[in-house]
Amino acid sequence: MNALEEALADARRKYRNWGRWGPDDALGTLNYIDDAKRTAAAALARTGRAFSLAVELTRTGPGGNPVHTMLDSGVEAAAGVQGYPHGFGDADVVVFMSLRSGTHWDGLGHVFDNALAWNGRRREEVVTAAGDRVTGAERQAAGFVSRGVLLDVGRALTGQAGGGELPDGHAITEDELRATIGAQGPSARVGRGDIVLVRTGQLARCRGTGDWAGYASGPAPGLSFGSLAWLHGSEIAAVATDTSAVEVRPHEFDAPCLWPLHQIAIPNIGLFLGETFDLEALAADCAADGVYEFMLVAAGLPIAGGVGLPVNPIAIK
Amino acid sequence: MNALEEALADARRKYRNWGRWGPDDALGTLNYIDDAKRTAAAALARTGRAFSLAVELTRTGPGGNPVHTMLDSGVEAAAGVQGYPHGFGDADVVVFMSLRSGTHWDGLGHVFDNALAWNGRRREEVVTAAGDRVTGAERQAAGFVSRGVLLDVGRALTGQAGGGELPDGHAITEDELRATIGAQGPSARVGRGDIVLVRTGQLARCRGTGDWAGYASGPAPGLSFGSLAWLHGSEIAAVATDTSAVEVRPHEFDAPCLWPLHQIAIPNIGLFLGETFDLEALAADCAADGVYEFMLVAAGLPIAGGVGLPVNPIAIK
Amino acid sequence: MNALEEALADARRKYRNWGRWGPDDALGTLNYIDDAKRTAAAALARTGRAFSLAVELTRTGPGGNPVHTMLDSGVEAAAGVQGYPHGFGDADVVVFMSLRSGTHWDGLGHVFDNALAWNGRRREEVVTAAGDRVTGAERQAAGFVSRGVLLDVGRALTGQAGGGELPDGHAITEDELRATIGAQGPSARVGRGDIVLVRTGQLARCRGTGDWAGYASGPAPGLSFGSLAWLHGSEIAAVATDTSAVEVRPHEFDAPCLWPLHQIAIPNIGLFLGETFDLEALAADCAADGVYEFMLVAAGLPIAGGVGLPVNPIAIK
Amino acid sequence: MNALEEALADARRKYRNWGRWGPDDALGTLNYIDDAKRTAAAALARTGRAFSLAVELTRTGPGGNPVHTMLDSGVEAAAGVQGYPHGFGDADVVVFMSLRSGTHWDGLGHVFDNALAWNGRRREEVVTAAGDRVTGAERQAAGFVSRGVLLDVGRALTGQAGGGELPDGHAITEDELRATIGAQGPSARVGRGDIVLVRTGQLARCRGTGDWAGYASGPAPGLSFGSLAWLHGSEIAAVATDTSAVEVRPHEFDAPCLWPLHQIAIPNIGLFLGETFDLEALAADCAADGVYEFMLVAAGLPIAGGVGLPVNPIAIK
Repeated sequence: MNALEEALADARRKYRNWGRWGPDDALGTLNYIDDAKRTAAAALARTGRAFSLAVELTRTGPGGNPVHTMLDSGVEAAAGVQGYPHGFGDADVVVFMSLRSGTHWDGLGHVFDNALAWNGRRREEVVTAAGDRVTGAERQAAGFVSRGVLLDVGRALTGQAGGGELPDGHAITEDELRATIGAQGPSARVGRGDIVLVRTGQLARCRGTGDWAGYASGPAPGLSFGSLAWLHGSEIAAVATDTSAVEVRPHEFDAPCLWPLHQIAIPNIGLFLGETFDLEALAADCAADGVYEFMLVAAGLPIAGGVGLPVNPIAIK
Repeated sequence: MNALEEALADARRKYRNWGRWGPDDALGTLNYIDDAKRTAAAALARTGRAFSLAVELTRTGPGGNPVHTMLDSGVEAAAGVQGYPHGFGDADVVVFMSLRSGTHWDGLGHVFDNALAWNGRRREEVVTAAGDRVTGAERQAAGFVSRGVLLDVGRALTGQAGGGELPDGHAITEDELRATIGAQGPSARVGRGDIVLVRTGQLARCRGTGDWAGYASGPAPGLSFGSLAWLHGSEIAAVATDTSAVEVRPHEFDAPCLWPLHQIAIPNIGLFLGETFDLEALAADCAADGVYEFMLVAAGLPIAGGVGLPVNPIAIK
Repeated sequence: MNALEEALADARRKYRNWGRWGPDDALGTLNYIDDAKRTAAAALARTGRAFSLAVELTRTGPGGNPVHTMLDSGVEAAAGVQGYPHGFGDADVVVFMSLRSGTHWDGLGHVFDNALAWNGRRREEVVTAAGDRVTGAERQAAGFVSRGVLLDVGRALTGQAGGGELPDGHAITEDELRATIGAQGPSARVGRGDIVLVRTGQLARCRGTGDWAGYASGPAPGLSFGSLAWLHGSEIAAVATDTSAVEVRPHEFDAPCLWPLHQIAIPNIGLFLGETFDLEALAADCAADGVYEFMLVAAGLPIAGGVGLPVNPIAIK
Repeated sequence: MNALEEALADARRKYRNWGRWGPDDALGTLNYIDDAKRTAAAALARTGRAFSLAVELTRTGPGGNPVHTMLDSGVEAAAGVQGYPHGFGDADVVVFMSLRSGTHWDGLGHVFDNALAWNGRRREEVVTAAGDRVTGAERQAAGFVSRGVLLDVGRALTGQAGGGELPDGHAITEDELRATIGAQGPSARVGRGDIVLVRTGQLARCRGTGDWAGYASGPAPGLSFGSLAWLHGSEIAAVATDTSAVEVRPHEFDAPCLWPLHQIAIPNIGLFLGETFDLEALAADCAADGVYEFMLVAAGLPIAGGVGLPVNPIAIK
């Protein structure tokens, strides 16, 4: 057994949450959020400033290239094509996209570990051509309401002088997460049920250069495999980053493997991973007032059987 | 000039908000919401109970029939087709849908009145084959956070004995809205910046019978043209219903016309209309505790240029 | 074993062509066509009259409802939106459709019999989420060129007085096929490698009424299960009809079963079935000149892995 | 007026075919094909060898990236998900693609010149959000049957030693077309109604390297603007190449302009341009036997209102 196999086996043994919330669970770590948590979260909306954390869905941006076409438009109406009476005119549109385009949560059925999906169910009983029949997006429709905490690792480790951006390939360790919390102060403490947003600065760097070529699949900063201990032990409800894959690329192992952190986090921990979150405006605000906690409402579209949830997350401070 | 033409002309004269928020506005009545409003809204999240108001997006339900297909699945993984090392497997999915499928907000560029879109801009300068270049969905990304108020007109007018459901073709008047508020008590008072949710009971009726055939375009209960006075004067930020078109079908005029309420509300008032909201669970809760106000976060997907915003609205009481 | 099970078992035993063209075959009965057959077919193009046998692909017609949307149009160009220099303007379009929309051939991977696909391969090794990896549409790219023969069963059995149309539910027997050939004369003789087009008149009837509601899945005339003996024994390369499913609906058995003729024809005989062919203009021409044979070129789109081949078949007399 | 403007003006004056086939024409240069031409074409199918000239439609090949997803598959059937009785199983598929993906004809409504589409109609009256209402793909359903002639300019100009491939940016002149015809001999003579296939070798080069990055929009060999005299004067029905745009890239003018040859050929001449034709197997056969003429059947899918026609062209020698 090589290092990768050992690491995977060790992580399964330590972090697996199967059965923790009953055999029929479809919420995973969202179970850590309860009514009291939501009430406390709402109390963090002190000033009423609201931030959308979604990237615009365009054909050429950081997302998965939705194709968005008009069935009718104002130009058509102006040309007299529509022929409606009494001055009525309209526009309509269809879209073709990946459910994991742009800002989204990975669904619990998105990744399997060996033969098994979240909670130990056989993968082929969970996700078929009809979609995820057990843990589909419609099952978490009201699940993503909680206290949010921004961990601006980019700023904490590099400072503004360093551009606030981690280099591609930087694997964020548990120690770096703790150091960021320490640097940011009490409002950044992380507890059960929180939704943690980790800023690396990669999205800002790509936006600055206008070059998104490597964003989807090239090297990127991200969470280290080692950070799984903290992701599991802290009992957070979800974690999201401003990168397209949460985990560092390339990964830290000297063996072929696709997404080792995903492979533990999703089917074993039941943890929701959020990708391509735009944290720039929120991070600037947090840096300015020193408050890193807020109310977060990030409910994805409940497409039945979806293994990904497109979302427009709203943070309110 | 017939009755319809007169009614439209009169409504334009009385309710038009053009220029009210400057020449470059892309928010319409969402401008009524400010930081103080959002802070006050958050204070309504007293118990932490959260409700998703979105219908599941399925091929056969009330929405616009999204087609949702898997690029890969657990069945594929189980069959050994994927061939990933170290036990990794995954599932992925694409979707083809109308931006106005299922639960959604109509965008400001969705409807024109004579040659003009919201704020008096020429329709062909606003919505082209590239989408809405002025008031697209990405411009309201953080706009739908406010106090929500449920007006359960179905229950108020018919009582539980009447099934809590208005018949198809019932045109809800301003008086009926006021009567509902009166019956529901102080928590149902409506003020500037509120997002009002009107329950007719139609969605519950269709769900009960399993027959959605008429839901999208057949007769339906809904707001009367006359209710525009109240929609405008109350200075609400948005209004949504559990029907597919907000306004009553057929409309009240004896002349061909498509959507007279839309024609005034969207391009003239700048009012956001929400369609196919599932208000059942929320309404049952409100009926039980007598509290009809809540925090509402209903931010739609920011598809660039979108004239519709698919949304998973979250109400928190 | 009931009548259906016996009939299926008997048909498998008699008509199965597995191994006939080697273990790696991807052409099925198209193997009956060779260079000599194509040369002879071309010699049937005596007058040069050409007929398209495809239905128009529209959102509301007999096909599978493609959605066809413009990325740009002349109206946009006229509105000055495009901004190209020197008078250039353009229009572009995308389409979302089933590969079995409108006029098409069913692919060899479209139907399985028990665990097996064409030639006895296991179905899960043939058609995965990546499409048909063995017998996909790209493998028959040049396969559909041969002598075509029209069997106008509708006219032969009912005469013009009967409208030339078989009633829904009429199961065409082998005897009726032979009687049609006899009535039509020597040009209608069928031999090895021919592509046979069977006209029932259903498409004409639907077009006449404008009602396509039952065309896709309601009762329809079509080939009987018993006609499989002839379909197999005549060694034809393919058979197509003016209905949406080739075989009669409902089928002739008193037991639940989806498509018994498909179940034998595709995975066992390796026979290509063509659906929704528009035979009206061709049939009128054949009735007029008494010539029922022609050159047929009906090559489908080679979408890699496709289990259906959209096609615009051309008959030349 | 600069050189480009003068060249465009001169070409319009000399090559414009408006009115030639009446005011309601939807066939353009396909009018050059008549019954006698088709009969003569069929006589060229001497040996029965058939060639498909279409590229496979895949997600990563030379075409426009169709997305092709399974609604059901053999893997699903094997997993017992389908639950059909009596051993029936099936697979189905949907596709999302540009009508100009892969091998296709540009429709007459694809390009405009100044305010006008083919035959002098105003562009906004021809192509709206509903598609091409005058010259859509369904109007040419039986139009592409004729004598085909291969002009293998790549081989003729460079020889096998040169790889048979023109370099990117090579603008094929009228003289080079004539020299190719001369080198290939009598079977390569071009006349009224022929469909001419010009091989540059670019597609073979890209296939050889596996690099399609520049194929869709980078530099490419192709027809020169000057060749329009020959394209018009020869009265051919259509011309196709093994490149993605028929005309050379970059074009020969020292001024910004998109597609000058398209701008004259499509709306002024009414000429059909075929793109991404795979001529390799056919060209090898022609080089071997010295026969450059054949029967060509290249009927595109009749998607109603289409401004592009996906096609699987079949050449028969």
